[in-house]
Amino acid sequence: MNMVALIEKKKHGDALDNAEIEYIVRGAADGTIPDYQLAAFLMAVCFTGMSDEETAQFTACMAHSGETVDLSAVNGTKADKHSTGGIGDKTTLIACPLVAAADCGVRVAKLSGRGLGFTGGTIDKLESIPGLRTDLDADTFIGIVNRVGVCVAGQTKSLVPADKRLYALRDVTATVDSAPLIAASVMSKKLAGGSDVIVLDVKYGSGAFMKTAEEAESLALRMADIGKRLGKRVSALITDMHVPLGRAVGNALEVQEACAVLSGRAGGPLAELSAALATEMLFAAGADSRTVCADRISSALRSGRGLEKLAEMVEAQGGDPAYIRNPVRFPQSQVRRTLYAPSDGWVAATDALAVGRAACALGAGRSSKDAPIDHAAGILLERVRGEYVRSGGALATLFADSIERLDEAEALLADAFRLQDKKPQPTKTIYKTIC
Amino acid sequence: MNMVALIEKKKHGDALDNAEIEYIVRGAADGTIPDYQLAAFLMAVCFTGMSDEETAQFTACMAHSGETVDLSAVNGTKADKHSTGGIGDKTTLIACPLVAAADCGVRVAKLSGRGLGFTGGTIDKLESIPGLRTDLDADTFIGIVNRVGVCVAGQTKSLVPADKRLYALRDVTATVDSAPLIAASVMSKKLAGGSDVIVLDVKYGSGAFMKTAEEAESLALRMADIGKRLGKRVSALITDMHVPLGRAVGNALEVQEACAVLSGRAGGPLAELSAALATEMLFAAGADSRTVCADRISSALRSGRGLEKLAEMVEAQGGDPAYIRNPVRFPQSQVRRTLYAPSDGWVAATDALAVGRAACALGAGRSSKDAPIDHAAGILLERVRGEYVRSGGALATLFADSIERLDEAEALLADAFRLQDKKPQPTKTIYKTIC
Repeated sequence: MNMVALIEKKKHGDALDNAEIEYIVRGAADGTIPDYQLAAFLMAVCFTGMSDEETAQFTACMAHSGETVDLSAVNGTKADKHSTGGIGDKTTLIACPLVAAADCGVRVAKLSGRGLGFTGGTIDKLESIPGLRTDLDADTFIGIVNRVGVCVAGQTKSLVPADKRLYALRDVTATVDSAPLIAASVMSKKLAGGSDVIVLDVKYGSGAFMKTAEEAESLALRMADIGKRLGKRVSALITDMHVPLGRAVGNALEVQEACAVLSGRAGGPLAELSAALATEMLFAAGADSRTVCADRISSALRSGRGLEKLAEMVEAQGGDPAYIRNPVRFPQSQVRRTLYAPSDGWVAATDALAVGRAACALGAGRSSKDAPIDHAAGILLERVRGEYVRSGGALATLFADSIERLDEAEALLADAFRLQDKKPQPTKTIYKTIC
Repeated sequence: MNMVALIEKKKHGDALDNAEIEYIVRGAADGTIPDYQLAAFLMAVCFTGMSDEETAQFTACMAHSGETVDLSAVNGTKADKHSTGGIGDKTTLIACPLVAAADCGVRVAKLSGRGLGFTGGTIDKLESIPGLRTDLDADTFIGIVNRVGVCVAGQTKSLVPADKRLYALRDVTATVDSAPLIAASVMSKKLAGGSDVIVLDVKYGSGAFMKTAEEAESLALRMADIGKRLGKRVSALITDMHVPLGRAVGNALEVQEACAVLSGRAGGPLAELSAALATEMLFAAGADSRTVCADRISSALRSGRGLEKLAEMVEAQGGDPAYIRNPVRFPQSQVRRTLYAPSDGWVAATDALAVGRAACALGAGRSSKDAPIDHAAGILLERVRGEYVRSGGALATLFADSIERLDEAEALLADAFRLQDKKPQPTKTIYKTIC
């Protein structure tokens, strides 16, 4: 087979057959197709797209381009979740323990990634807990899932190598925003992860890849189609990412907020979405009707069993569970500053992208793949969309390790807040559920 | 400046400004922009194109990305020609000596390339003449142009390095067939070559990049526009490349055919097109009216002064002029075979691409950049379009250095001939002249 001819074919908008797709994915994984040919191919896909059948085949080949996780030794139905990425999204830390705590025979064996740029990664958040390890071997991982019901580990290097290479290349060749490429990248990792059920949280808004609910829905349908073609049960929630999810942005701050939700001390969109995701994981796994599943999740939350499950998981992964049971133990940054409201008003928006950039400037995000991050750095939003503030009242608190970082982030964050005289209309966190 | 942002901009179909284009071209020349980003950029251009202004700026930047040829020491107007490439195209060897022999004060200081794939290069053809050198330093080159009136040298490595890199990359990323990229590649080399007048031979048909006359015309108009924006006089002939030009395909065979035309022993499309190109070079250089220019060229041909000029040029470049004055001296391959007609009929077509492929299989072309070629290998078409052949009569003679090559080429060549019962309609060699 000849890669130039395959690029040409895709450039003309013709569908590639299974053998051709396999050739490309194998060449991406083993390095026999050079970067420049893959880059030209990816750009051609941005223009001419891929059919649902092509996308499913592309996804399946990527999923099998390296090691896959064998969960056959896990008892019960295995449910996974995935978020397309947003600012302040710590739903994994809430929804996954709730699913395990609901005690319906549904288990969560989840692989997560590190963050890059403005969107954080669950692994970074977990690593703010002293002692916790995410580089678990297969036996340890499956042992924890069977014993505790939930485990969150880092992706190994040998998982979906084809996607790793293409993902890195897309980032530097302006070929990120292609629906089939995004869908295949996400779903290949989920397939390789071995779960039976996949619940997707597809976000739209300023802090998301997809800018509108329609784009997000179209991407969700595409991912659901891939999953179903490849034998998985898939649900998707289309959710709002115009503003950050919750009030905390930054790794240790987000873990603390997750604990607050799990102990019933925090509500709002974060609690609502986390519960909805957990409910959908149970429902898609066939545990019961959606109403009963929602009750089970609600009960796991109210009873404190969700928080206790997170503490158990943290302990099983080598972390100190006292941080979960008593989050004030997390060391707080002493270099902090309050952002004050310049006038009276209702908060109409806290632009997610701007908040993400500010958090990144504070040291909570990575500018490059191997850059270190400051687990204590980040932002607490004292006022969020729909709340009133008096002139001179606190809008947000910034945490960092230097005054310079505070200065840079404060300028970015001030632009994120939009105040207005009238109380804004309430907005929906969950736009739609697809299953 | 950020290459990812520039790729993104072009991907969205927005025009790049002069500084952005300069950044990309400089990065292509000095290697600071990696292949994969250039490949993604080139593919985006294939889809969204470039405006005339962008293309001109892209061309100008490429022309100045390395050394340029300073022809200020050449007396008179400097005229150059360029063919977009075809099978059996040896017009340079005929038209350029005719321009010099016409003695109108128009001189030809021409840089040519080697062939790759099915289309031959003038340098390869000239190198079939024993002793002839094409790697001339600037002083020698200009000295020959002033003394003889015509010189054809090879492109130095430092000429248009940006185009060299992009051209090589386009070849392996299926991004060859973009009109602005083709136009910029051709015109950057012509601009760097330093002539005042550029006559383009833009081909269409099975053996050309452009498949239809309309595509070729559109490309020609684009190249003419670039040239004019950058202060050059440009004419273009749109010409037929459904069938090879002339009867010889292969390096030494083509030099012999050029000599036959220059000595009045061969007519047909090759002689017609060569004379038209030479006429246009004189006319565009302002020598006289087109009719007078045509007369001067016709006289240079009939008198034998054109042939004598080619012999002078060959001698000045270190070659043995006896080969030009007496082409039977060229050694002929002893491994040869005749292809016979399977039935009576008129030759309706000798598909240029198929003939090119057969010639390449015989050893007349290069499969990769540094592959050796066999100067004596090639094909003589005994019958061409519009001629009658009896069953068992000779259609073509094949020359090679091995029986294996003959076997492979014969199979390819047999498919090139299409015979029919009715005499085919005559076709036009020159579809249109643009100036």
